[in-house]
Formats: sequence, C-alpha cells, structure tokens
Amino acid sequence: MKPLQNDLFLRACLRENVERTPVWMMRQAGRYLSEYRATRAKAGGFLNLCRSPEMCSEVTLQPIDILNADAAILFSDILVVPEAMGMDLSFGTGEGPKFSDPLTCRADVEKLPVLDDPTRELGYVMDAVATIRRDLNGRVPLIGFTGSPWTLATYMVEGGGSKNFSKVKAMMFNEPETMHLLLDKLADSVAAYLNGQIAHGAQAVQIFDTWGGILTSRDYKAFSLDYMQKIVSKLNRENEGRRVPVILYTKGGMGWLEAIADTGCDVVGLDWSIDIDVAKARIGDRVALQGNMDPTMLYAQPDRIRAEVKDILARFGRGNGHVFNLGHGITPDVPPEHAIAFFKAVREESVQYHR
Amino acid sequence: MKPLQNDLFLRACLRENVERTPVWMMRQAGRYLSEYRATRAKAGGFLNLCRSPEMCSEVTLQPIDILNADAAILFSDILVVPEAMGMDLSFGTGEGPKFSDPLTCRADVEKLPVLDDPTRELGYVMDAVATIRRDLNGRVPLIGFTGSPWTLATYMVEGGGSKNFSKVKAMMFNEPETMHLLLDKLADSVAAYLNGQIAHGAQAVQIFDTWGGILTSRDYKAFSLDYMQKIVSKLNRENEGRRVPVILYTKGGMGWLEAIADTGCDVVGLDWSIDIDVAKARIGDRVALQGNMDPTMLYAQPDRIRAEVKDILARFGRGNGHVFNLGHGITPDVPPEHAIAFFKAVREESVQYHR
Repeated sequence: MKPLQNDLFLRACLRENVERTPVWMMRQAGRYLSEYRATRAKAGGFLNLCRSPEMCSEVTLQPIDILNADAAILFSDILVVPEAMGMDLSFGTGEGPKFSDPLTCRADVEKLPVLDDPTRELGYVMDAVATIRRDLNGRVPLIGFTGSPWTLATYMVEGGGSKNFSKVKAMMFNEPETMHLLLDKLADSVAAYLNGQIAHGAQAVQIFDTWGGILTSRDYKAFSLDYMQKIVSKLNRENEGRRVPVILYTKGGMGWLEAIADTGCDVVGLDWSIDIDVAKARIGDRVALQGNMDPTMLYAQPDRIRAEVKDILARFGRGNGHVFNLGHGITPDVPPEHAIAFFKAVREESVQYHR
Repeated sequence: MKPLQNDLFLRACLRENVERTPVWMMRQAGRYLSEYRATRAKAGGFLNLCRSPEMCSEVTLQPIDILNADAAILFSDILVVPEAMGMDLSFGTGEGPKFSDPLTCRADVEKLPVLDDPTRELGYVMDAVATIRRDLNGRVPLIGFTGSPWTLATYMVEGGGSKNFSKVKAMMFNEPETMHLLLDKLADSVAAYLNGQIAHGAQAVQIFDTWGGILTSRDYKAFSLDYMQKIVSKLNRENEGRRVPVILYTKGGMGWLEAIADTGCDVVGLDWSIDIDVAKARIGDRVALQGNMDPTMLYAQPDRIRAEVKDILARFGRGNGHVFNLGHGITPDVPPEHAIAFFKAVREESVQYHR
C-alpha cells in the first residue's frame, strides 16, 4: 500500500500545520450522487450495499473522485451494530430503518450480547474497511464511525426513527437502571467495533451522537456523554505509527462543548447553530473543530456558497485545528454541482489563512 | 366581568412577588385530553373548531378545570394568519397543515396583503378571545399568541411542515430581499393581529418561534429575531390598567438568550436543553423565564415527574420571575393524570421558594 499522499485531514485533527483547510462532509457518499444511486440499485438495496465490501468501497470512493474530498468515510449504517447484537433490521423502500423486535423491558436488554469480536460479528464491515484502504491506495485517510450508545438506543427502543421519542424517554425516566445496562453494553460493543475498524485500517474515527441533543443537560451527561467517554477511553489511539484521531459530534449539543472536549477526544464536531469563532474561543485551545456550514446552504447558488465558506474561514481565522465540514449530513436533493462548488471554495479560499 | 382572582402568572411575568410559582403548559388544550377530542369531533375537525368562538372557549377552559392551570391560552392555530392573507389552508385527518398554493417567487410575496384590521380579517379569533374572557370570568389571565414571522414563512414557502426546509432556506439564501419582504409583511400583520387580541381581552401574548432554531446565529438575527423585535416594538403593552407581558419563545434558541432578552420582551421561553439556573445567570436580571421541563418527562411516573419539578425549582431557587412550563408542547400520547400530577407538584413544591 502506498504511503498517505494527502494527510491534511489527519494533521488538522491534531492541530498541526496545514497548507490549507481540509474538507469532507457527512453523508458525502449518498443519495445526492447519481453514481451512488446506481451502485445501490446494482446492490439491490441499502442493506445489501452495506454488506458488500466491494460495493461499499465503490461508493466510499465516489466523493473522493467527484468532490476531491480530503478524507473518505466508511460507507455503512450505524444500525449494523444492534443488528449484529441480534435485532431484526430492515429498510423499506423510501422509508427509514425498522426493528421488528424493539426493546421493551429489562429482560430484552439482559438478553442482548456484548460484541467483542468484530471480525466475526461484523466481518463484512471489517472487510469493507480493508477493501477501501486497498482501493484508496493512500490518496486520502479513511474515517471509521459508529453511532453513540444513546443514539443507537433510541432506535432499538423506539423500533425506528421517532418524533417524540416517547418510548426511549419513558424507559430512561422510569427504568434508568435498564437504560444504563443497555448503554453500557452498547459502549463496550461499540468500543470493540471501532477498535476493529482501526485494526483493519481506519485512520480516524467519528462517533455520531445524532440524538444527544434531545436530552436535558444532566440527562445528556448521564445517558450519552458518559458512555461516549467510556468508548474514547477504550480506543486504540495509535495505528500504523500515527495517532488515530477521535471525533465526537453531538447534533444540538453546542451548549455542552466544554464537556465534550473534556472526554479526551481530538476533534469536536459542530452543528450550524453556533458561530465557529465562538466555539473556538470556548474549546479551541484543547481540541480541533469540525464543521460547521448549514447543510441547507447547499441549496443556494455557488457564489452564495462561496461567500458562506469565506465567512466561516474568516471566523475561524488563522491557526490550526479546523476541519471544514457541514454541520450535519448533506440532504438527498442537493445538486451535486453545488457540493463540488463548496469543496472547491474551501480549497481555494482557505490557503490565505495558512501562509 | 369579575376582577382577576388569580394573577400569579401576570405577576411572575413582571418579576413581582408571588406566593408560589405559577404554571401552565404549551398545548394544554390539546389532543391528550379526551374532553378536547370530544369537542373537536363535535366541531367536525380542527379548523372548524378554530373558527367557532364558543367551542374555542370550551377547549381553552378545559385545562383550567382539569389541571388548575394558572393561565389560559387562546385555542387557535398559528396558520390562521397566512390563511387570512389569502392562502388556502387545510388539515388532512391525522396529517399536518397543508397550503395548496405555497409561495415560490417574489411575485407571490408581492401579491400578499398586509393585515391591518383583525376585527374584519380574523374576526372569529377576536370573538374567541372575547368569549373566553367572558367564560373565564376572572379565574385566570388569558394569553394570546402568534407564530413568529420566520416560523409562519417556513410553512408558507414549504407548503406545510418540512424535514429539511429546503425551499424556505433556498429562498432565504438565493433571494434574501424576497424573504425580507415576506417577513416584513408578516411582522406588520402579526403585530396588528396581536394588538387586536389585546384589544379584545388578551392579558399577555406569546410569540412562538418554533423554527428559529434551524438557523445559524447570524441568520437567526437577520431573519427571525429582528422581525420579532419589530413586533414587540409595535405592541400595545398596557390594557385594562395593567401591563400586558410579552413572551418570546425560540425552540433551539438557547445560544441566543441575551439577544432574545434584548428585544424588550418581558419573558423569555426556555426549551429543555438548558439548565434554568444557567439561563437565570445569563438573563435573569432583565427578564422573567418560562419553562423548562422536558415535555417527555410526562411519560414518566408521577413520582419521577415530581422529582424533576423539585430539581427545576431548586435550580431557579429563590427570587421572582419564573413561570413554570414545559420546554415545548405536551405530546398527544401523555396520560392526562401525569399532566395533573405535574401541575400539582409545581403548586405544592414551589411555595417554599416564595416565603
């Protein structure tokens, strides 16, 4: 395998010097790309795609070719973890994820196994990581990922997506010990899963806490952050002679940036509700920042997108530790040429801040 | 009409002394109550209910009887304003609101009239306000309300609820002058509408900025807050010899509390993502605070609900200026006895902080 040719992303994660600000985006391998939709159709559906290492690699590399992204992110789904723990997962056409057997009581949670051998339990993901590394051939680093324990728990208890999160909140309020047992099993499983991804070639990992923001401050700490901290503490932070940066991203968690930075992660993911200069002043002396353009900015025309990129770069200003990204995933109805214009603007406009 | 017998809510809004913390909750007249569902069925649907002053009064008073709420809030919908501006509004069974003719371009916005005579344009709401005041007969104060201009604009441009807000964001980014024209018309219309409610008997008013939280800091200021400030500046703040408090509530806006307090409102509504002691330290010297229990706490058992009420009261501590409420509306599947237990807990547990 060739040595890494573009390590801007890894250097920025560790607040080292870079020649320009690296950029990737959440869901960059996704439905807004016709190339992705073609591969998914060929695979015969979303879960089949997730289970094919070769096709996972194909879609993971598409945005590297199309957007010139500075990092690749493993194509998979956060819910393969509960599936590997024995839950029955499906995706209806045009629908969200469904578990036919959601967790309803302590006995359901007690029955769940803890994953400890990802090569066996989630071998197809490990194979995908290795295949992507082979196919990337050193072009850019590969990011592995997982959902946070709390975020996974919401799907496992609700049985799918939710509007009010009534079931998972009821379990959390009425049976906190059951919820803690579930989260603890998930934290151990996810730590093993991420360490497996790192062992197979992931050069950075991101924990997606998509639903931490629905909690109060104290519930966030007790039911989401503490378990992410447990994961961070169990990760192998070095591989192939380099540090493996850990990125923590809680959508709607901008009130808790200091606590997130205190977990020992290397990078804090920002949503778009906070100005990046404000976030930098709060935690920029300890961690790198990833973000934070409003994903709906990609509905704007390219010149407006460029103006927004310039504004965010100017707010961050000089100094190290910025990975440009959206504040949340790109949405399916964005024109690909807008995404291309976004990446180009970051590459061109960021040079002046790193001279 | 009898003089006001319970003015705890109005006094708390103005940070005056109270004997206990007043409590009401958003959507307290709503689907979780079988009494409400019976009245709605009798009316023949949601919009018919909104248009009948007598039945509006009936559902508005239900939570005063059932929960002993310390304030009543006008039963209506925020979208009656765009409907009165000429847009075609409907609610399918079990569905959200729909406009058959969403705004797509500058010409659509230019055609919209500005409301300036609510007695004529929204006479049924004015009649509802007067009828409710008659039926309340001085038991508790009546709160009037509106959606914020930005929140109304999201529905008018999207044609209903939305997940990604792609259309309204595209208009905001690509045609900011069109969006400002729309928001300005809405601000003027809403100010006239609220002044009409006050003239007909509303003793406080709340502006619901349900969707301000999807914006960046700078877009929030330019496209939501500035127009709420315009409304606040145009309101008649005194009626029947008392000050009419203005409550501003932006869900997801806890990063901007200082700016919200600076609008000149009397009360800032909190969602549940912030600890109320933190909010009090930030803006409690200028405004009263309304909130902020997680609405899903009502899925918990009554003793857990009481523990949460005690925690929030203790965080606020001694001192004036707290109106207890949820951080967002009550959800339809909450057992009414949990809501009753919530109100009872606030009444009983808050006395000690006001001795």
